[in-house]
Amino acid sequence: MRVLIIGSTGTIGSAVKKELETSHEIITAGRNNANIFVDLSITESITSMYESVGKVDAVVCTAGNTYFGPFKDLTPEKNEITILSKLKGQINLVLLGINHVNDRGSFTLTTGILMDDPIVGGTSSAMANGAIQGFVKSSAIELPRGIRINNVSPNVLKESMEKYGPLFSGFNPVPASKVALAYRKSVEGAQTGQTYTVY
Amino acid sequence: MRVLIIGSTGTIGSAVKKELETSHEIITAGRNNANIFVDLSITESITSMYESVGKVDAVVCTAGNTYFGPFKDLTPEKNEITILSKLKGQINLVLLGINHVNDRGSFTLTTGILMDDPIVGGTSSAMANGAIQGFVKSSAIELPRGIRINNVSPNVLKESMEKYGPLFSGFNPVPASKVALAYRKSVEGAQTGQTYTVY
Repeated sequence: MRVLIIGSTGTIGSAVKKELETSHEIITAGRNNANIFVDLSITESITSMYESVGKVDAVVCTAGNTYFGPFKDLTPEKNEITILSKLKGQINLVLLGINHVNDRGSFTLTTGILMDDPIVGGTSSAMANGAIQGFVKSSAIELPRGIRINNVSPNVLKESMEKYGPLFSGFNPVPASKVALAYRKSVEGAQTGQTYTVY
Repeated sequence: MRVLIIGSTGTIGSAVKKELETSHEIITAGRNNANIFVDLSITESITSMYESVGKVDAVVCTAGNTYFGPFKDLTPEKNEITILSKLKGQINLVLLGINHVNDRGSFTLTTGILMDDPIVGGTSSAMANGAIQGFVKSSAIELPRGIRINNVSPNVLKESMEKYGPLFSGFNPVPASKVALAYRKSVEGAQTGQTYTVY
């Protein structure tokens, strides 16, 4: 399959690329070190990306900025960082990408454990995760031509514990390589509308 | 208690007003037929509303526009209708309202069954519902001064079946008066971070 990965330089994205590149043709997109430039927060940038890429069988998004910080400091403006990128960016990847995905292709978006198991500072992320989960579950029943859509909701990563560990006290971190398997399941499997939790 | 209801002229809002006005002081806000004008999609309008209202014990939101229509017609622009109103409007009511809510007060937002049980045309609503649910669950652990937050997720209403019935084929509609009880539970109870489903 021809697989477009948006955000392939992140910890999850690079694990997904490693997992999938043994059996698929990978095209990467992102703001840096990618085959094609894309800024998810700009719809025109998403449209240009798809025009450059041509048809693909799978779109995998492991990108999306969020605002992280204490709730008392969360303002509509700071929340907008998350809405523009992780929330609308991922959704617009689907809305603008349908015609660029082959029959029986797929979209795989990224959510995260904070929607199910909140931590201090994570409200804006939890909002975006919940939005993507609702969008995935509902759009799955209407996508045309056998196109599927799922989301992967990872726990905190083993690879991120040195940096974020104190925020995720008592969480059981998972290796990025295990999270990457859920993306493979979404890309190669037959299910749709699912949230693959890797907790 | 002093209870601010945003959207008190809708089918749910009027049932909530009827349920609560026997035991509380009600102030209504909305775009029409309300004590105070507010347009949820404009942050300045939310700020002005709170300045007019003064301190309250509970904020109940039963307002919020959504785009409803076939997924194939859903564009980033149409989806923005929902994001501006039901999603960001309700969230900004909380972010901008904290200092106007008394100690041990509460916020009660509205989601809906479409996030759990999708129908054709409901993807944008499902997105907003999921976002609000994630926001509520996460913000609940950080709200100051004992302030609580919940959301009510109603099924399709009995009162709406004549208009929307064909869209909700096989759903078991609930009367608005039953949905209103969940808002009372949120306002007068002690729970926080909950989704009260009335399915």
